[in-house]
Amino acid sequence: MNTTRANTKRRKSKSLTAVKAGLPPGTLVHVGAVKTDHPLISLLAYDDDGIEEHRFESIAESRAYRPQHKRLWLNVYGLQDAEILGEIGRRFGLHPLVLEDILNTHQRPKIEDYGTYLYCVARVFEYDSATRTLSSDQVSLVLGENFVLTFQERRSGTFEPIRERMRVPGAPFLQHGTDYLAYTLLDAIVDQYFVIVDRLGDTAEDLEDDALASPTPALLKTINLVKHDTHLLRRAIWPLREVLNGLIRGESRFFSADTRLYLRDIYDHLVHVIETLDAVRELLGDLMDIYLSSVSNRLNVEVRILTVLTTLFLPATLITGIFGMNFEVMPLLAEDWGFPVAMGMMGSVALGMAAIFWRRNWLRI
Amino acid sequence: MNTTRANTKRRKSKSLTAVKAGLPPGTLVHVGAVKTDHPLISLLAYDDDGIEEHRFESIAESRAYRPQHKRLWLNVYGLQDAEILGEIGRRFGLHPLVLEDILNTHQRPKIEDYGTYLYCVARVFEYDSATRTLSSDQVSLVLGENFVLTFQERRSGTFEPIRERMRVPGAPFLQHGTDYLAYTLLDAIVDQYFVIVDRLGDTAEDLEDDALASPTPALLKTINLVKHDTHLLRRAIWPLREVLNGLIRGESRFFSADTRLYLRDIYDHLVHVIETLDAVRELLGDLMDIYLSSVSNRLNVEVRILTVLTTLFLPATLITGIFGMNFEVMPLLAEDWGFPVAMGMMGSVALGMAAIFWRRNWLRI
Amino acid sequence: MNTTRANTKRRKSKSLTAVKAGLPPGTLVHVGAVKTDHPLISLLAYDDDGIEEHRFESIAESRAYRPQHKRLWLNVYGLQDAEILGEIGRRFGLHPLVLEDILNTHQRPKIEDYGTYLYCVARVFEYDSATRTLSSDQVSLVLGENFVLTFQERRSGTFEPIRERMRVPGAPFLQHGTDYLAYTLLDAIVDQYFVIVDRLGDTAEDLEDDALASPTPALLKTINLVKHDTHLLRRAIWPLREVLNGLIRGESRFFSADTRLYLRDIYDHLVHVIETLDAVRELLGDLMDIYLSSVSNRLNVEVRILTVLTTLFLPATLITGIFGMNFEVMPLLAEDWGFPVAMGMMGSVALGMAAIFWRRNWLRI
Amino acid sequence: MNTTRANTKRRKSKSLTAVKAGLPPGTLVHVGAVKTDHPLISLLAYDDDGIEEHRFESIAESRAYRPQHKRLWLNVYGLQDAEILGEIGRRFGLHPLVLEDILNTHQRPKIEDYGTYLYCVARVFEYDSATRTLSSDQVSLVLGENFVLTFQERRSGTFEPIRERMRVPGAPFLQHGTDYLAYTLLDAIVDQYFVIVDRLGDTAEDLEDDALASPTPALLKTINLVKHDTHLLRRAIWPLREVLNGLIRGESRFFSADTRLYLRDIYDHLVHVIETLDAVRELLGDLMDIYLSSVSNRLNVEVRILTVLTTLFLPATLITGIFGMNFEVMPLLAEDWGFPVAMGMMGSVALGMAAIFWRRNWLRI
Amino acid sequence: MNTTRANTKRRKSKSLTAVKAGLPPGTLVHVGAVKTDHPLISLLAYDDDGIEEHRFESIAESRAYRPQHKRLWLNVYGLQDAEILGEIGRRFGLHPLVLEDILNTHQRPKIEDYGTYLYCVARVFEYDSATRTLSSDQVSLVLGENFVLTFQERRSGTFEPIRERMRVPGAPFLQHGTDYLAYTLLDAIVDQYFVIVDRLGDTAEDLEDDALASPTPALLKTINLVKHDTHLLRRAIWPLREVLNGLIRGESRFFSADTRLYLRDIYDHLVHVIETLDAVRELLGDLMDIYLSSVSNRLNVEVRILTVLTTLFLPATLITGIFGMNFEVMPLLAEDWGFPVAMGMMGSVALGMAAIFWRRNWLRI
Ligand SMILES: [Mg+2]
Ligand SMILES: [Mg+2]
Ligand SMILES: [Mg+2]
Ligand SMILES: [Mg+2]
Ligand SMILES: [Mg+2]
Ligand SMILES: [Mg+2]
Ligand SMILES: [Mg+2]
Ligand SMILES: [Mg+2]
Ligand SMILES: [Mg+2]
Ligand SMILES: [Mg+2]
Ligand SMILES: [Mg+2]
Ligand SMILES: [Mg+2]
Ligand SMILES: [Mg+2]
Ligand SMILES: [Mg+2]
Ligand SMILES: [Mg+2]
Ligand SMILES: [Mg+2]
Ligand SMILES: [Mg+2]
Ligand SMILES: [Mg+2]
Ligand SMILES: [Mg+2]
Ligand SMILES: [Mg+2]
Ligand SMILES: [Mg+2]
Ligand SMILES: [Mg+2]
Ligand SMILES: [Mg+2]
Ligand SMILES: [Mg+2]
Ligand SMILES: [Mg+2]
Ligand SMILES: [Mg+2]
Ligand SMILES: [Mg+2]
Ligand SMILES: [Mg+2]
Ligand SMILES: [Mg+2]
Ligand SMILES: [Mg+2]
Ligand SMILES: [Mg+2]
Repeated sequence: MNTTRANTKRRKSKSLTAVKAGLPPGTLVHVGAVKTDHPLISLLAYDDDGIEEHRFESIAESRAYRPQHKRLWLNVYGLQDAEILGEIGRRFGLHPLVLEDILNTHQRPKIEDYGTYLYCVARVFEYDSATRTLSSDQVSLVLGENFVLTFQERRSGTFEPIRERMRVPGAPFLQHGTDYLAYTLLDAIVDQYFVIVDRLGDTAEDLEDDALASPTPALLKTINLVKHDTHLLRRAIWPLREVLNGLIRGESRFFSADTRLYLRDIYDHLVHVIETLDAVRELLGDLMDIYLSSVSNRLNVEVRILTVLTTLFLPATLITGIFGMNFEVMPLLAEDWGFPVAMGMMGSVALGMAAIFWRRNWLRI
Repeated sequence: MNTTRANTKRRKSKSLTAVKAGLPPGTLVHVGAVKTDHPLISLLAYDDDGIEEHRFESIAESRAYRPQHKRLWLNVYGLQDAEILGEIGRRFGLHPLVLEDILNTHQRPKIEDYGTYLYCVARVFEYDSATRTLSSDQVSLVLGENFVLTFQERRSGTFEPIRERMRVPGAPFLQHGTDYLAYTLLDAIVDQYFVIVDRLGDTAEDLEDDALASPTPALLKTINLVKHDTHLLRRAIWPLREVLNGLIRGESRFFSADTRLYLRDIYDHLVHVIETLDAVRELLGDLMDIYLSSVSNRLNVEVRILTVLTTLFLPATLITGIFGMNFEVMPLLAEDWGFPVAMGMMGSVALGMAAIFWRRNWLRI
Repeated sequence: MNTTRANTKRRKSKSLTAVKAGLPPGTLVHVGAVKTDHPLISLLAYDDDGIEEHRFESIAESRAYRPQHKRLWLNVYGLQDAEILGEIGRRFGLHPLVLEDILNTHQRPKIEDYGTYLYCVARVFEYDSATRTLSSDQVSLVLGENFVLTFQERRSGTFEPIRERMRVPGAPFLQHGTDYLAYTLLDAIVDQYFVIVDRLGDTAEDLEDDALASPTPALLKTINLVKHDTHLLRRAIWPLREVLNGLIRGESRFFSADTRLYLRDIYDHLVHVIETLDAVRELLGDLMDIYLSSVSNRLNVEVRILTVLTTLFLPATLITGIFGMNFEVMPLLAEDWGFPVAMGMMGSVALGMAAIFWRRNWLRI
Repeated sequence: MNTTRANTKRRKSKSLTAVKAGLPPGTLVHVGAVKTDHPLISLLAYDDDGIEEHRFESIAESRAYRPQHKRLWLNVYGLQDAEILGEIGRRFGLHPLVLEDILNTHQRPKIEDYGTYLYCVARVFEYDSATRTLSSDQVSLVLGENFVLTFQERRSGTFEPIRERMRVPGAPFLQHGTDYLAYTLLDAIVDQYFVIVDRLGDTAEDLEDDALASPTPALLKTINLVKHDTHLLRRAIWPLREVLNGLIRGESRFFSADTRLYLRDIYDHLVHVIETLDAVRELLGDLMDIYLSSVSNRLNVEVRILTVLTTLFLPATLITGIFGMNFEVMPLLAEDWGFPVAMGMMGSVALGMAAIFWRRNWLRI
Repeated sequence: MNTTRANTKRRKSKSLTAVKAGLPPGTLVHVGAVKTDHPLISLLAYDDDGIEEHRFESIAESRAYRPQHKRLWLNVYGLQDAEILGEIGRRFGLHPLVLEDILNTHQRPKIEDYGTYLYCVARVFEYDSATRTLSSDQVSLVLGENFVLTFQERRSGTFEPIRERMRVPGAPFLQHGTDYLAYTLLDAIVDQYFVIVDRLGDTAEDLEDDALASPTPALLKTINLVKHDTHLLRRAIWPLREVLNGLIRGESRFFSADTRLYLRDIYDHLVHVIETLDAVRELLGDLMDIYLSSVSNRLNVEVRILTVLTTLFLPATLITGIFGMNFEVMPLLAEDWGFPVAMGMMGSVALGMAAIFWRRNWLRI
């Protein structure tokens, strides 16, 4: 997640087109940036009787292990090792297209029902307020009768609070089925969106101040980049909403009626995030107007300065011209007090003009 | 409701993300600003035979009380005491997610059917025309077979006229079921929207005058803030419309066919408010055009002043330059009337120019 | 209808919020401007055998009257007398909400089926091209098995041509049921929309000429006011379209299949009016562009004048400066023809510049 | 079709409102411009055995004629003679509303099913690239079991190629039913749209060149007029699409399954025309941007000229001012080479400035 | 594909209108540019036992050939020879409208079910980044029980990788039905879209840099041309999405449930392409704002230069004017140090002004 947005954008498209074009479907090739050094497999088995946890550095290590609790949560950090995916796919009977989607980290969020399991893709985001950089990871989730598989691009703490809640001895959590676990995982993802949208909102408000203070074209480019980020976020969040809507209406047998009530809660949160995001987007749109009007205003100020200057100096210059003419007979020239009078004329014209400008508020630049 | 909009906006997002992220669902924590010192519980029981009213400062106080009329309206002002909510929830069998939503005062308006009761959320608004500040409270309503529960963030007078109508001896109101009470409560909320939209409309018209008189970028920022307020209002009103539509079509068994006719009346009012709000929004959008054109116009005026000045002084200055040249043989210089003639030339050129400008309306700044 | 738009706009919202808030539903209070001095009740009874007409100044007068033809058309001009409405409501069994809507003259157009009768609201408009003022009245129509009731805010001639057609002895009109009468009343209302949209279109074209000739911010305000009027009109016409669509698809038993063919004709007219109105709205939107470009163009012209002036005078002024320097040894100064030569230099530079401008079309201001 | 757009627009609305308001439905009055001197009736009867053709100058002429082939195509050019319409209506059992629509030539395209026949309205267009004028005629088509009636506003060649194809001896055309004839008539109308949209596209491209070369407000008005024309065209084409969609889905029994495949072909063409039209409309929208940016660019150029001039002359003028001062002790004034040195200073400052401008590309106006 | 866009655009519309207008439906005339010299027919027959390939230069050559494997893929490069199409049409029982659509290379993407086969049209694109030229070809695909026919406008390598995969001995591909072959063909087409959208995105980013560096109206025209290209692309991709949606929902019996899972994969890719394309389109829209603001900024800079110059020179010029006046009694003139003092005054005023500008950042042009 330490890549800048510009890099991400270009690299994504290049690799996508270079790697995929012409390959048969279901070929297990990792498409996307490698974001962790060593993949890690973590296993958590639980049921009403308790939980057990285990971590494996390789897929070979895990083969011998037999869990003692009946509900399974298998999580993989790091996707570059296609062999791991292949073996997990065979063990849990995953379709080649599912494995392909897990490895291709540019999926649009979706849920697909494969009969014996549900496959779900979502994105988690990170926003660096200092560099105004938004980065994102793909999270895949497979929900079966008694198992949940999750696949993340790097070692992240997104799901750590959930593990904490499961580790509490006698936690009511452990009595729920794997559908409830899947719900809490989705909930954790959606909760993060609030934080991101919040920071984007703060950035937008900062940009508003900049637009009023120093409207440069470079700022405009920044505004458009942030707008683009809100767009990316929206693309990741909107499809989730449709997906949840389907689950709530009971389209899938993998979620019990009771858990569906909780999905409705996530749905509410998603709608709230979307509405807040739209408000941020509108603010960014309004920024354009403020920016352009700020530019116009500065032009007005500059033309005004020019006009004030011209107004103050042109009459005075004319007066010096008049008394610089070479007529033999001219008033004042021969008088001792002629020069002070001429200077006074210049001064009073300038003062008169200044008074007019004062009343018009033109001297407050 | 005495917080300014800017404060509200920032505080909301901060608290939301800080408090909620990672908590298990159904945890009873109040999320939102504390808007009253002491919570207050008011009880109103009624049926065809009459009504009785009672107020409790604490939930403990209320435990011993047994109402003598069969229909119950329990109202809670102030949500910071999660214990009150917890006990009411247990007594009326409310789902933990309902209690969570009542306490989290940033809900989107909605109605949810929980089988034995209907849960409804709406927002009431207050608009301070002087500071152009919009603030809002969440109102929760639970409608059961023989009870209505309402939860408000502070002690407000929104429902007072309804209590007045119920207190009239032999009021036909008392013969209706609790669905009719729920209708009148919703009606009172919607009636307030008219007042708010009205004031926003007045503000928009004031801003229009400002845009013509003094188009500063700061004004533009104000316009966008008011636009943002209309947006907030719209977000609170639109979902209600969908909700009412569902109730009118008979989706819920909690409203009798007769009461549904009255819901249709609220629906009409909501549509009217939305249309008026949209007109205000369009006016605010048009303000941008008026603002920008007003800025352009001032630039024109300023360039025009510059042009008039240049036009009046440049020829005169040229004439003084000509008669300031040092040629030994030059006309006029030796004549007594040379100077007045030169001054006359300057004056007549200036007058001629002024006449042209007069016809072009350029002298009316 | 002699109120200006500005007045109408403010008075509507004020009265609406002041009068309605907190009143129980169905309270018979007239909400809206009083537009006629004395209410008037006109009765027209007809069937295959002929027609009879009668006018009553008060509701008491009408109690004794027994019509001899079986189909009834009762029309009320002026709504301020709630007693009239109350008695008519009781006689024809109207729901309190219907009476409330008739009296509250800010309804959105709609049709509601109350089982034994159909209640319909629409708006009629009047446009004063001179003051560019749009005003409107509400018309309510109740269609029962053998009666039609209409309620208008003032004495208007909208329905007079229909009475004329019914008065023709042996008119085929009289053999149709009251659904056909209701159709002709709606048709008369829709026909008026053509006239209004026409006049708004003429106004828009006049404004286009103004925008090219004299683009002032005040004109922009006028454009936006007219745009607002087209918006009001649209709000009154669009709902009617939906309403008619429902009737045509046979949603109501009050219109026979035969009369529904005629409703389809009104529907066509409504669509035509809406499309024409949208064209007017688009023209008004384009006006903004013409206006702004007209302003820009004037700025260009003014800067051009400034440039031409500067170009013509600066070189000449430089030449006078050169020959005004006090060097002891300078060419030309001592020659008799020096001055004319200097003047010639100034003239030829100015002429050369003018030639260049001529080719660039800069002298055609 | 020789009327200009402006005329058409005003005349349409005037006549529409003047003639129609208050008339009973079904009154046979021709509403629209009279576009041909003498109406003409042409009859074509055909079946598998061959065809016969006949032309009548009046309806009386046609009464005696008995066609010998069983499928009938009756075409009327010119609609001002309501008597013709009346008699045809009676002979073929047309509803009064159909006759009214045929005579009122401002119908929106539609298809209506009257049980024993189908009534269809469409518009044909003509575009004069020279005057940039779009004009249109209404074409009505009635399709019955064994007959097709067509009504055109003037004698046009739109359907001539179809007659040619029918006249070919033994043409397979003649074996199809009248639904196939109706299809070919619609196809001929839609084929013409390609030509019109093509020409509008060429006009838009011409306007683009004008916007870059000479951006005057008058051009902007022209752009908006062409935009308005594309709007008119769109209004005529879009409804046809819906209409065809309905026929293809088999909503009407008048088209056989086989002919519906051909209707699908027309539908494809319509969608293609609409997409091309939308591209033209987008191009016209972009023109606004090019126009405004072209105006801005010219302002920049003009201000640049002003700046260059000021920059070249102000320093020189200052130098002449310096050597024009009357100090008794000043350098250079007494030297023989003083004047050339001063002139050299002026020249070198001007050259230096010019060099700077050269590098900034400011001298390429 | 070597034609420029401008050419393509004009030629398309001209030929379309010239050739098609008035022709009977189903006439086999090639409409579009001829893009290859000699048509070529390539045949690939396959089943579980293996594959065979053959190429024919003419349709006559192919008549004698009898393939030994039961699944057939016939591909035609070059469409100008209507005879080839005619014979293939007769052999495979294609409807005349299908043949017409194959030959008319301006079809909108679509899928039509003709009972015994499915007809599908799509477009492949090529984008030349150097000349910023987008060109496209039409690809037609007919899917029957045991055959796939493809028709391309020129010899292209689009489908070569698929042939490679089929040639691998014992490839699992060969065991799938022709529906799987049709899927891989569509997949190859959609994969190419990624490459094109990628390049358009790069072009848009280049244009953004240009807009900041040198905002000329010509650049604006280029931006609009690229926008137009994204529009063309969108028109080709959107309909495919609808088409695939229908196939996935099982509307056609030609695709097995298993292959439909793969179609869902293409669908995902299409949505991804569309979203990326929309991001490019938004970037192009934002470019307008950057462009216009860049132009405004340059105007500000130019006016600022003018103001700085005027400010630096006007006071100095006034001072020279003062000391150039011809008063007999004036201070300083007679002093030896008078001239240096005057020069110092000019210098210090200029320095003071420069200091003010420095603080305002006006000297950084
Ligand atoms: Mg693939
Ligand atoms: Mg949550
Ligand atoms: Mg994404
Ligand atoms: Mg909740
Ligand atoms: Mg907002
Ligand atoms: Mg905006
Ligand atoms: Mg939660
Ligand atoms: Mg109300
Ligand atoms: Mg809200
Ligand atoms: Mg009402
Ligand atoms: Mg409005
Ligand atoms: Mg606007
Ligand atoms: Mg009420
Ligand atoms: Mg009518
Ligand atoms: Mg209204
Ligand atoms: Mg009609
Ligand atoms: Mg239009
Ligand atoms: Mg426009
Ligand atoms: Mg009529
Ligand atoms: Mg065609
Ligand atoms: Mg039309
Ligand atoms: Mg076709
Ligand atoms: Mg386009
Ligand atoms: Mg544009
Ligand atoms: Mg054809
Ligand atoms: Mg693919
Ligand atoms: Mg399109
Ligand atoms: Mg295309
Ligand atoms: Mg996939
Ligand atoms: Mg984007
Ligand atoms: Mg933009």
